[in-house]
Amino acid sequence: MMRGHQTWLFQNKPVIIATAAVGGPYEAAGPLAGDFDLLHGDLWLDQDSFEKAERKMLEEACEVVIRKAGLQKQDIQFFLSGDLLNQIISSTFAARTLAVPFLGLYGACSSSMESLALGSLMVDGRFGNNIICGTVSHYAAEEKQYRYPTEYGAQKPPTAQWTVTGAGAALLAAAGEGPRVTAATIGRVLDMGITDPFNMGSAMAPAAVDTITAHIRDLGISLNEYDLVATGDLGRVGHRIAADLLKKHDIELPQNRFTDCGILIYSEDQTSVLAGGSGCGCSATVTFGHIINRMKKGELEKVLIVATGALLSPLSYQQKESIPSIAHAVSIERPH
Amino acid sequence: MMRGHQTWLFQNKPVIIATAAVGGPYEAAGPLAGDFDLLHGDLWLDQDSFEKAERKMLEEACEVVIRKAGLQKQDIQFFLSGDLLNQIISSTFAARTLAVPFLGLYGACSSSMESLALGSLMVDGRFGNNIICGTVSHYAAEEKQYRYPTEYGAQKPPTAQWTVTGAGAALLAAAGEGPRVTAATIGRVLDMGITDPFNMGSAMAPAAVDTITAHIRDLGISLNEYDLVATGDLGRVGHRIAADLLKKHDIELPQNRFTDCGILIYSEDQTSVLAGGSGCGCSATVTFGHIINRMKKGELEKVLIVATGALLSPLSYQQKESIPSIAHAVSIERPH
Repeated sequence: MMRGHQTWLFQNKPVIIATAAVGGPYEAAGPLAGDFDLLHGDLWLDQDSFEKAERKMLEEACEVVIRKAGLQKQDIQFFLSGDLLNQIISSTFAARTLAVPFLGLYGACSSSMESLALGSLMVDGRFGNNIICGTVSHYAAEEKQYRYPTEYGAQKPPTAQWTVTGAGAALLAAAGEGPRVTAATIGRVLDMGITDPFNMGSAMAPAAVDTITAHIRDLGISLNEYDLVATGDLGRVGHRIAADLLKKHDIELPQNRFTDCGILIYSEDQTSVLAGGSGCGCSATVTFGHIINRMKKGELEKVLIVATGALLSPLSYQQKESIPSIAHAVSIERPH
Repeated sequence: MMRGHQTWLFQNKPVIIATAAVGGPYEAAGPLAGDFDLLHGDLWLDQDSFEKAERKMLEEACEVVIRKAGLQKQDIQFFLSGDLLNQIISSTFAARTLAVPFLGLYGACSSSMESLALGSLMVDGRFGNNIICGTVSHYAAEEKQYRYPTEYGAQKPPTAQWTVTGAGAALLAAAGEGPRVTAATIGRVLDMGITDPFNMGSAMAPAAVDTITAHIRDLGISLNEYDLVATGDLGRVGHRIAADLLKKHDIELPQNRFTDCGILIYSEDQTSVLAGGSGCGCSATVTFGHIINRMKKGELEKVLIVATGALLSPLSYQQKESIPSIAHAVSIERPH
């Protein structure tokens, strides 16, 4: 059911019966390595292009999540996925492999929670069961498409972020064991006029705050109800801006309860990541790996994941457009 | 509720309270010109790029549909849209203008019915009201991105199709007057190994037939229940293949009840369109203009729109991949 202007409250609380996280070499060297189901030692995955390697990770995440749920491919009713490649080819080609009814999504890096929100809505409304919600990104494939092929060795400012090489997937069902999705807030597109694609955290921070404030307003709750609020990929620069903007709304969370997937996934020693991780795979792998694992261990009862997306294209940037941004928030609870 | 493996049956039958169709110069010269709400005499719409012209058409379609429904922008709860430009920038920038909660979709040219199906699910399940489902395409913007800038004057084979310059939008509500959405069948991704981007009708025809047969199987109905079955943009070549494939399933419809939006939108005299119209805007403008108008006039009681999408990207084509395809079907009924 709708609550307020932009929030869905799920009365049947869809269950995340399994999750999967697949990562690449930089993720394997990071502090969350132990939370991945599968890690690759190089960016190629034995494929002849980075795009094919990206697709393969998403296919692997789907395989792993089906296996962990104890299901077969034919038990899956829908696949909801989006990614950053033009025409979301990683998702569509993975959907060809899965061969189940497919809904393609695009919300840039917010696609992880866009798919989880829509999948939860479908399960909650009895419009489907055993739904895979997935997404993927790949450092070299995205650099090539959005900026420069990495072989050029182009330099970047310290506000730039590092695209996560990783795929995440969740399997949603009407019944079963696992954390449950209780609500989702769908974001509006905001644009504060930032035009620098090397500073996307700043562009996306206002969208994250807009969605967080809508979420607590629509549900009439305090953000303190959550043990953890994690933005998707604001990185160190954007996350600080988000914290400052929340303060202006009189919302302040202790540092250990307000974090960002793009900060968590790499260590401070990994200096090449600059301001932190980004990409569809960032919030997906951290949520469906690390955060769900912490919930299962009993360390977290209730979390809010606020996946952020920068809705630019290289063409819109070249045409001097600013960067519209969006954020979708999903709350996940551990059953008592 | 779910019916069979891939069909949603809408028990509350969401109402299409208004629709809008915006077109360009080729559409203005075609036989359906009278069904457009707004027609433009050139491809530029006073913008300085074709991409901005594409976005403007979608913004216009949203404005028109809100006005025709007698609503204000602030009455709109969600905007669901996708398009063919990389990172669906027409949709995301139009969403910035609308400033309402936004869900970005990508199903190539099937996006028109993907958005109508998902919007109907949201209204049916009480997860939203006054939802705009829209999509857009633009001949010159798409040629430039997918093939060659039109200024090159590249020649095309007769199987090629002509991207419709147009935007279509529908406004869905839980109550009101208008045709009602009764069911939707979500397609699987099929790939018959066709690699020629100048022959997309052939690549997409099997997906259309797969979804049509799933639709009648899931609902236990005959295709003859429909006064009109319209595929999205198979064109003359693909439509003939779809008819042949249906025959193999012992399904045969009289010619006046099985058509294709890509055939309807242009006349045979418009020889530059080759095998017919294509693009997101093809099924959207023909459905939300011509077909809905025929329903309102009482000429049609029950129609099935099967929007087809070719899920390739220029990159996947250059990497020698074949063209995966998908089709989503939505049935629309005139209330008695």
